[in-house]
Amino acid sequence: MNDADIRFLSRAVALARENVVSGGGPFGAVITRNGQIVAEAANQVVGIPDPTAHAEVQAIRLAAARLGTFDLTGCTIYASCEPCPMCLGAIYWSRISRAVYASDRHDAARAGFRDAELYRDMIRDPDNRILVCERIRVPDSGLEFDDWANSGIRIDY
Amino acid sequence: MNDADIRFLSRAVALARENVVSGGGPFGAVITRNGQIVAEAANQVVGIPDPTAHAEVQAIRLAAARLGTFDLTGCTIYASCEPCPMCLGAIYWSRISRAVYASDRHDAARAGFRDAELYRDMIRDPDNRILVCERIRVPDSGLEFDDWANSGIRIDY
Repeated sequence: MNDADIRFLSRAVALARENVVSGGGPFGAVITRNGQIVAEAANQVVGIPDPTAHAEVQAIRLAAARLGTFDLTGCTIYASCEPCPMCLGAIYWSRISRAVYASDRHDAARAGFRDAELYRDMIRDPDNRILVCERIRVPDSGLEFDDWANSGIRIDY
Repeated sequence: MNDADIRFLSRAVALARENVVSGGGPFGAVITRNGQIVAEAANQVVGIPDPTAHAEVQAIRLAAARLGTFDLTGCTIYASCEPCPMCLGAIYWSRISRAVYASDRHDAARAGFRDAELYRDMIRDPDNRILVCERIRVPDSGLEFDDWANSGIRIDY
């Protein structure tokens, strides 16, 4: 923790508060690289509408667009609240190096959000989740991975 | 499982295979409602570039835009492969009612994708993950949830 951490994390909280004033969800996120802000965003689920438009996901999309790459190695993300499973997954895929947050999933639960519940449900065996999940075999299943292995133009991500 | 399930899931696999031909990742997804396709997409991580542009996330965004709502209750998502933690989180938030898939996280791992690894890492305590996660307190943290609780214009999502 240093002064920059406090400053960027406070900015994420400020984005969350500003967003509530305009009718959006109470979440904000800032992505930095080398001590500079690359992207910042607030939750836009209701405004777009897009259920995936959490603050962290929106900030990652914007950072990738601005940097021209899907690889955000070396970046740090500051989130007003602990990333939910979707956002945490997005952070992994983006290769962001460090995630810093202020409130946590339990604070979010007290505010009426399901983050903690989702963390609990998704680690269950797919057959035992609240969400109905079914695996079905179809004839061509798996051939897409063979195509991928044999592709001469693929870009690993 | 019924004939429609086989048809839509086969379509998701076909989207994955077509995508590899054009240089994209080997994943496809289809969202249906009342037996009709609402949206379909393939992985666009490299093409956009956007690390969050997995097939399921792209299909959810498109379905939400077309239906004009963040609430996809009653929809089914068909994915060529078991949704990764990010996509599974997106499915929960979208309120999609049922997720059907063909390949699974272990098939994806054999093809070089980290889905299974992410499922293992994200259930760890944040202090013990491969991804560096830090919780830091800042003075205003939590006030955004008070704002939310007191907001007269909020739309719960």
